[in-house]
Amino acid sequence: MDRKGMLMVLSGPSGVGKDAVRVEFLRECATIESSVSATTRAKRPGEVDGVDYIFLTQEAFGGMIEEGKFLEHTLYNGNYYGTPRPFVEDQLRSGRDVLLKIEVQGALNVKKFFPEAILVFMVPPTMETLWQRLVGRGTGTHEDCVNRFKLAYREMCYADQYDYVVVNDKLPDTIRDLCAIYKAECCRRERNIALCNQLMTEEVL
Amino acid sequence: MDRKGMLMVLSGPSGVGKDAVRVEFLRECATIESSVSATTRAKRPGEVDGVDYIFLTQEAFGGMIEEGKFLEHTLYNGNYYGTPRPFVEDQLRSGRDVLLKIEVQGALNVKKFFPEAILVFMVPPTMETLWQRLVGRGTGTHEDCVNRFKLAYREMCYADQYDYVVVNDKLPDTIRDLCAIYKAECCRRERNIALCNQLMTEEVL
Repeated sequence: MDRKGMLMVLSGPSGVGKDAVRVEFLRECATIESSVSATTRAKRPGEVDGVDYIFLTQEAFGGMIEEGKFLEHTLYNGNYYGTPRPFVEDQLRSGRDVLLKIEVQGALNVKKFFPEAILVFMVPPTMETLWQRLVGRGTGTHEDCVNRFKLAYREMCYADQYDYVVVNDKLPDTIRDLCAIYKAECCRRERNIALCNQLMTEEVL
Repeated sequence: MDRKGMLMVLSGPSGVGKDAVRVEFLRECATIESSVSATTRAKRPGEVDGVDYIFLTQEAFGGMIEEGKFLEHTLYNGNYYGTPRPFVEDQLRSGRDVLLKIEVQGALNVKKFFPEAILVFMVPPTMETLWQRLVGRGTGTHEDCVNRFKLAYREMCYADQYDYVVVNDKLPDTIRDLCAIYKAECCRRERNIALCNQLMTEEVL
């Protein structure tokens, strides 16, 4: 039976822990592949081009926008972020499941292109925790942190347009929730009705 | 926060293994309680009144129908089956999750009363397997088995009105699927949006 791949989108406010969750979820769940986003933001220590992000100049990014090569792109905190379209479409067509990790607005744009995408919104256990994570990360100025933190409140309003909400408190619990969502979505009726129809054609008596 | 209980309904054709799955799922998942159905069918060896079913006479069952005490009831293979309504409603109201194991038509009736109920349709890996299970159970005449088996084909048509389809091949895999569905449903946005709203009221800076 032909199976179309599933698109799962992991999102949530800055500092909620999307990166760590993405890495661990991909390790746990071998049947889903990650798409790498492109960005114009500066590379952080330890990040690898093509693995963590595809790091592009403003000019290169702008060119790709004009060529329609992004599934979604968004300006966030002064930097562009985008999901290269061809990779995702190829994977889904060939029946492979794809994980995207994107900013809150970007995720909602993806839903416009792929209404069947599964959108997961990650929230911190408390806002105080989110603030501590933003500051503790040490990747921006105090002002950066304040801006991201203020933005987080506005982003939380979009949770009601997502399919699932997962609290990222302890990482193993978050991964368990994501694995459950992924497995449950594989069991959805729409994905298995062909199997039922096939069973009904089986003659036994 | 007030939490309304979740209603999960396990169904599928006769012989697919609903009883064994129910027992094991309840053992695995401590936060969901089972409702016991009432029936007019004869007690099978080993079955306990009030645990496996509430065994009633035709007269007693008819009286309860007239008093509106069933959430759903159905005539199946010459016997009545029904779900006593008060237990389920009380559990849900007090925030406890309830598992119902009912016949295919009965499950769809429950969905009319509780549109938010989660309906799971179990299918066998092959129809040949279903036939072997029906015969191997040794609880009916050959004619009973043939009737149930023929009914199974008709019942499979209703799978497209369910939320999930789970293949009951190896029991541990089935239980894993059901646990995932249960956990994923707990993460659905509708059930967690109050938490997001609460987070947004938290002042930190």
